[in-house]
Amino acid sequence: MKNLLDGIEDVLLMGPGPSYVHPEVYRAMSRSTLGYMDSYFIRIMDEIKTLLQRLMNTSNERTLAVSGTGMAGMETCLVNLLEPGDDILILINGVFGLRMREIATRLGAKVDVLEFEWGTPVRLEAVAAKLNEKSYKLVAMVHAETSTGVHNPAGEIGALLKGSSALYLLDAVTSLGGIEVDVDGWGVDALYSGSQKCLSCPPGLSPVSFSQTAVKAIAARKTKVPSFYLDIDLIGKYWGGDKRSYHHTAPINMFYGLYQALLLFMEEGKEAVFARHQSGHRKLVDGLEGLGMELLVEESTRLPMLNAVKIPEGVEDAAGRSTLRSKHKIEIGAGLGPLAGKIWRIGLMGYAAREENVDRLLTALRDVL
Amino acid sequence: MKNLLDGIEDVLLMGPGPSYVHPEVYRAMSRSTLGYMDSYFIRIMDEIKTLLQRLMNTSNERTLAVSGTGMAGMETCLVNLLEPGDDILILINGVFGLRMREIATRLGAKVDVLEFEWGTPVRLEAVAAKLNEKSYKLVAMVHAETSTGVHNPAGEIGALLKGSSALYLLDAVTSLGGIEVDVDGWGVDALYSGSQKCLSCPPGLSPVSFSQTAVKAIAARKTKVPSFYLDIDLIGKYWGGDKRSYHHTAPINMFYGLYQALLLFMEEGKEAVFARHQSGHRKLVDGLEGLGMELLVEESTRLPMLNAVKIPEGVEDAAGRSTLRSKHKIEIGAGLGPLAGKIWRIGLMGYAAREENVDRLLTALRDVL
Repeated sequence: MKNLLDGIEDVLLMGPGPSYVHPEVYRAMSRSTLGYMDSYFIRIMDEIKTLLQRLMNTSNERTLAVSGTGMAGMETCLVNLLEPGDDILILINGVFGLRMREIATRLGAKVDVLEFEWGTPVRLEAVAAKLNEKSYKLVAMVHAETSTGVHNPAGEIGALLKGSSALYLLDAVTSLGGIEVDVDGWGVDALYSGSQKCLSCPPGLSPVSFSQTAVKAIAARKTKVPSFYLDIDLIGKYWGGDKRSYHHTAPINMFYGLYQALLLFMEEGKEAVFARHQSGHRKLVDGLEGLGMELLVEESTRLPMLNAVKIPEGVEDAAGRSTLRSKHKIEIGAGLGPLAGKIWRIGLMGYAAREENVDRLLTALRDVL
Repeated sequence: MKNLLDGIEDVLLMGPGPSYVHPEVYRAMSRSTLGYMDSYFIRIMDEIKTLLQRLMNTSNERTLAVSGTGMAGMETCLVNLLEPGDDILILINGVFGLRMREIATRLGAKVDVLEFEWGTPVRLEAVAAKLNEKSYKLVAMVHAETSTGVHNPAGEIGALLKGSSALYLLDAVTSLGGIEVDVDGWGVDALYSGSQKCLSCPPGLSPVSFSQTAVKAIAARKTKVPSFYLDIDLIGKYWGGDKRSYHHTAPINMFYGLYQALLLFMEEGKEAVFARHQSGHRKLVDGLEGLGMELLVEESTRLPMLNAVKIPEGVEDAAGRSTLRSKHKIEIGAGLGPLAGKIWRIGLMGYAAREENVDRLLTALRDVL
């Protein structure tokens, strides 16, 4: 029987994720599987927790990786924090804000939204005005909008929420590991991310963190969390505490990959990693502008790891990306929703965020345009 | 910084799962990550679907792998098939039947159960009597109870349900790939399994299948599926159809592993794989009895891949397992719930189900007892 795996090419992943994986992470994932209650495996889980706490700047005890992708992390936060009838305010300026609205609605929450033009950031004054009008159990925002490349003001929103009774939920799927994420400093109560963006690990895990305030709010629920798989209290009892108890069979080898990815981040050092993302981004922007291309997002609110660039007149979206993939072995991303066919999304995440990769992409783009 | 991965030992996994992984599966998982919409990756997904259909004996179009562990598969089936107030009958003779009850209850279903003594199978007469009393939307059972090693009569329950309006949900986490699972022949409407049992792949994916009747029942729901991550209709649109649409970022490298595991199964051939499980089981039972040990389950309803054996008087549960793990590099499982401290669970799943592994375990057990 033909094995399709033999035909897999090494593609330079410079789309919106998954990102290009570090070779050491592949090696980590192919280590021997241990039992999910094996004491040596538990040591690795404990280390993952500690490394995630450092990466997120938090002392939250309830910091762990959910056994699903970033979307599972989003749902974990919402399904644990919301009960039917709860008031949530969602700040939306792209696909992932819309996703939060969809999930919160399915959970029976009363959802208010503030919408901002895609490609522009969440505006603080509008949020402040809304918070003056009404009090919320939860306010939710995406830090790095993967659909547009906008850097939302996560710290400023946190400051705005200090003193209010609202819990603060932040999507850090694309930001974590590429720019600063300061859970405790910003007063974030619940955060979720993904393994497959700036951490250079394949998709499959979602790092999350819950503050003490969030843990208390969950303990005070009137109803059980409707999802058993994503019940953070039960997951937390597997990840720590006096007596670990079985909840599900952890994806052991994915945990190895995440652990290795976190070690690589710490070894290189936060400042060096963030600087590498920034310098790659500047080089990319210069190069794109040199090719006559225009970025979607204004300079002051651009993310380094996700660069949305307008597709030049006369260039066909799908054909251009297809040539990059087939001829140059590079993946970039398409636009989503209202931006479909109008932009390309170029990721500079983790291991991919290197100047030589930017050079390779720019050369390929010159060929395509 | 110390890398704990360097200290991982190769442990012969003969517990209730995860099982011992085939070396080719590790190799598969370390192949280069592709994008989740990459056309070559989509080809691999298509092959996974076809291979799962063959393995499960089904032509169900809605056959795929959920991006979570077996527990996510259980929740996927229940959350899509049940709405608040729906009547479900759950046949319980172990931990995983209890889990279904817990999830169904959280979803607001009206849950009836029939309980059978742990270590004994579901009895058809009792089920038939219950079905005469009341009609159900869904009847659910575990095929291979991992907590006890009992082989439940999956085909017979299917026959009983033919002609009734109830949908039939079967947990095939531990059975799939080790004994026959005949979705179409038995009239199963929804089935979930796990990658980490008889398929010899690490945990992280849950193969599922839904019949046309189940798909129609889901389409006729009055309410949206409360989980977005596990919404089978949205997941199905990513796995097939005219226009694939983004739902979540698939755990690419786990899919490689599952694909390789399925290829290995097909290459060896169903009959050979099942025979290997049976002969390993017979050798194990003979050996255990030779050591004076007694099996929990009566011969006629024993599973080959999960062997529950009573811990002999005078032998300490945790100490015994710990010696097996530390000195002999073999993992076996503890008892759960009422069987904790009373039994050990010995898995003979997939790649582990070989006579040389049985020999190695028996030699080690002789040392421990």
